[in-house]
Amino acid sequence: MNPRSWTTQADSRRRRLKRAGEICRGKVVPADAVTALLEAILEPGDRVCLEGDNQKQADFLARCLSRVNPERVHDLHMVQSVIALPEHIELFERGIARQVDFSFSGPVGTRMAQLVAEGKIQIGAIHTYLELFGRYFIDLTPQVALIVAHSADREGNLYTGPNTEDTPTIVEATAFKSGIVIAQVNQIVDKLPRVDIPADWIDYIVEAPTPHFIEPLFTRDPAQIGEIKILMAMMAIKGIYAEYGINRLNHGVGFDAAAIELLLPTYAESLGLKGKICRHWMLNPHPTLIPAIEAGFVQSVYSPGSELGMEAYVSARPDVFFTGSDGSQRTNRGLSHVAGHYACDLFIGSTLQMDLDGNSSTVTLDRITGFGGAPNLGSDARGRRHGQPAWLKAGRQAQERPAAMPRGRKLVVQMVETFREQMQPTFVERLDAWEVMEKTGMDLPPVMVYGDDVSHIVTEEGIANLLLCRTLEERNEAIRGVAGYTPVGQKRSRGMVENLRDRGIIQRPEDLGIDKRLATRDLLAARSIKELVHWSGGLYQPPQRFRNW
Amino acid sequence: MNPRSWTTQADSRRRRLKRAGEICRGKVVPADAVTALLEAILEPGDRVCLEGDNQKQADFLARCLSRVNPERVHDLHMVQSVIALPEHIELFERGIARQVDFSFSGPVGTRMAQLVAEGKIQIGAIHTYLELFGRYFIDLTPQVALIVAHSADREGNLYTGPNTEDTPTIVEATAFKSGIVIAQVNQIVDKLPRVDIPADWIDYIVEAPTPHFIEPLFTRDPAQIGEIKILMAMMAIKGIYAEYGINRLNHGVGFDAAAIELLLPTYAESLGLKGKICRHWMLNPHPTLIPAIEAGFVQSVYSPGSELGMEAYVSARPDVFFTGSDGSQRTNRGLSHVAGHYACDLFIGSTLQMDLDGNSSTVTLDRITGFGGAPNLGSDARGRRHGQPAWLKAGRQAQERPAAMPRGRKLVVQMVETFREQMQPTFVERLDAWEVMEKTGMDLPPVMVYGDDVSHIVTEEGIANLLLCRTLEERNEAIRGVAGYTPVGQKRSRGMVENLRDRGIIQRPEDLGIDKRLATRDLLAARSIKELVHWSGGLYQPPQRFRNW
Repeated sequence: MNPRSWTTQADSRRRRLKRAGEICRGKVVPADAVTALLEAILEPGDRVCLEGDNQKQADFLARCLSRVNPERVHDLHMVQSVIALPEHIELFERGIARQVDFSFSGPVGTRMAQLVAEGKIQIGAIHTYLELFGRYFIDLTPQVALIVAHSADREGNLYTGPNTEDTPTIVEATAFKSGIVIAQVNQIVDKLPRVDIPADWIDYIVEAPTPHFIEPLFTRDPAQIGEIKILMAMMAIKGIYAEYGINRLNHGVGFDAAAIELLLPTYAESLGLKGKICRHWMLNPHPTLIPAIEAGFVQSVYSPGSELGMEAYVSARPDVFFTGSDGSQRTNRGLSHVAGHYACDLFIGSTLQMDLDGNSSTVTLDRITGFGGAPNLGSDARGRRHGQPAWLKAGRQAQERPAAMPRGRKLVVQMVETFREQMQPTFVERLDAWEVMEKTGMDLPPVMVYGDDVSHIVTEEGIANLLLCRTLEERNEAIRGVAGYTPVGQKRSRGMVENLRDRGIIQRPEDLGIDKRLATRDLLAARSIKELVHWSGGLYQPPQRFRNW
Repeated sequence: MNPRSWTTQADSRRRRLKRAGEICRGKVVPADAVTALLEAILEPGDRVCLEGDNQKQADFLARCLSRVNPERVHDLHMVQSVIALPEHIELFERGIARQVDFSFSGPVGTRMAQLVAEGKIQIGAIHTYLELFGRYFIDLTPQVALIVAHSADREGNLYTGPNTEDTPTIVEATAFKSGIVIAQVNQIVDKLPRVDIPADWIDYIVEAPTPHFIEPLFTRDPAQIGEIKILMAMMAIKGIYAEYGINRLNHGVGFDAAAIELLLPTYAESLGLKGKICRHWMLNPHPTLIPAIEAGFVQSVYSPGSELGMEAYVSARPDVFFTGSDGSQRTNRGLSHVAGHYACDLFIGSTLQMDLDGNSSTVTLDRITGFGGAPNLGSDARGRRHGQPAWLKAGRQAQERPAAMPRGRKLVVQMVETFREQMQPTFVERLDAWEVMEKTGMDLPPVMVYGDDVSHIVTEEGIANLLLCRTLEERNEAIRGVAGYTPVGQKRSRGMVENLRDRGIIQRPEDLGIDKRLATRDLLAARSIKELVHWSGGLYQPPQRFRNW
């Protein structure tokens, strides 16, 4: 018997690179040779990370991969954050890929659900970003990574520009386990503005025919924020942010959170809260945050990725944002989510459906969207040990027995209107997630944020503080008590709801001393994208589709 | 009124670099100029990360910093993982530093407790590593980072060697927020074996007069493993690892975990468990893992840092370890702890004291040691969403109501003998941590692992499965039932303990079908460091102090 080899992965890499050597010499690959290069390098069943981030996409490499011969390259196991492009779907339609472990799928979620039903996509699991990154180093290490950066020098050093996002993490997992890394860049230059990833870690670079795809996912037009969201934002600011003294936080991407951002320089300022709340942030550079930055509310912002149009503004505000010596933003999805998990006291997000225990999901039968960062940000960080007033107060409220070991608690706020589009009730007795599990054979219902981790629910009817609920029955009734005219809300026990209100578990706007008549668009610091541009002194340059003036 | 400046941090950096320019030109600083350089760059009250990792230490920079004039440089706020060197303490004795946020203090823990009592050290908080890293990007960003690498080239690119550890995270936080980064290296060379950190991110490099300090923290001599630990390891393997099918795991650093590692090729093999348990690991390259690697149990190991003496062995096993193109190991404490938190199904560790709720701590009145990675690794990862048999089974066992939303659960095992050195009972009614909180004014008792997160306790008396306990009383009694002859154990109710045993909540060795007579040192795959060297085919080169033959 031959002795066991300990270098099978390095040997495989060498064989692949040798085959690639027949397609191209050196690190720089001509664009028209990439499909052939992929056919030479890839082997059936490979685990492949085709960089799909929140914003930027390795779109050219995706196109090339979708064109390989499925007789040579098939049954790939894709491991990537986001499924977003038509080419990502095409890989499964053509049999090039079979399995996927991912975090989020946006516009192609409907098609994905169909392909799962047809048996053409096997979903390993839907992860939160940081969870998938963790698995890159344990049991889902990619054999090949197809990544994207802004530019490269001739040695292969990479400049990611403001959208560093997932790139360093993907490359670290692949390059240090005998994997192969291929990078598409917008241009190959003599000298990079800065080095984000060392050439050592990169095997091939290709100048793509067009600049990589990038999506302004975090731009919310203030013109679309109505009075209900403004009222909810007032409640969140007065009933939660001021009440707990929230200074380190993360905002989800919806209009609800945008409304809060736009009320800081007006409503929060009028309450004397400047310098007392919202100083340190983990989030992408939301354009709706500009007024709060300019008004002096925001001290620092660390970001998973950047946002199209915010480049010049971010560069001009290095006291607030993390930037490189070249002046452009530095981001990092992995480290941001570490910071969001362990160093923020509050997460505020939204959802499509919530049950009476407070469990919520965005996965429905006809659309598999995934969770993104919400599970990581929207869960109690039980490994956390440092105190902060907000965290300690929430922990005291949640403590069930006087003798129990005291512990802090993250504030996880779900902000939802009681009905969503087409009068679908947000609050339901049973999540669609149960049916999704049954039909797709998942291990568990796909829950985005578990009720046990939620501290507050904010609707147009009021705030429910779940930390103070002592029994399951109280929790159910607290949720019914803010569920409005949904069937779930109508089943409330009036007496018990009033009792919860007396105990401060449910708070109506009037209980918070909020005058509903003030909840008008006049309260928004900016009412349009144009006004955001104005606040920024012209530095914010919104993408064309948001320029409606 | 002047308009607000948005570049105060960048301006401060420029002023500091200008002052530094009077001490040295260019990036390379002569060793004898470093103290003057630090006096030029630092300002009172600065947040400073003086790299103190688990293993490697920026010892030369620590020495230089401890020699600055405290009239010029004082009241620094140190933010670093580990307080380990006498110089770290000297900073506080001399008034150069005042405050510290950290994770772990080993040998200097006793002196630290004294200085806290004297009011010379203000502890911000004791963190788990990942939590402190998160704060580097939110509210504890260093103004100056004093770091350590193996070598640099003349441009300032750094090679960390196998002990990458915290360095990339510290540098990323500092360099991209207008901070200043100074690196000590063992040598400046023309060409690095590989680039771990780009020159862009580094301001100054200095060749230290002696190679940096590094500690073999993870080497456990099998000669010191007695029969009690062997029995406990047998129980863990049969009662937990086999029972749940544990394949992705993290081991703490003690002799308990080492015993498990050394029983894999013998006892676990005899149970037919090869290929069924212990395939993917997150841990430093423990020498005691060598036999399990060689016997084919271990498929992959990702590490926060390396281990002295393991360099050649790791390089020769790239199928198992993460290595660079130069052949040496690549490690990363941040990413490892992400992987440990989100991609491992079991953590096994040890502690000094445990109360009846299962809360444990290593902080005692006369010694402040910190927590290291245990809180992150030893807490349920509530943001996790991907299923694995072990995680799903633990979740089913922990589910309290049949109608509750099902959720997986991490296995967190505490392995302790009922008495520790000098016959101190491990199990106590009340942790010393309460008194530490009262005397030092901490916000909460310094708990390392909370009882709510613990799934199993293993002692020489048996295994207690806390997941299956339905009431607090059951949990208390389950803990008493494995607490042996400690006062806590003696207060057990025999009837209730037998009832818990009938229900499988307490399992004795005989309940697990373990023959105690087999628990001898004959069962260890290696009984000495010398035998570990033998298993490694001579590749493992233990440090001198472990060479006792």
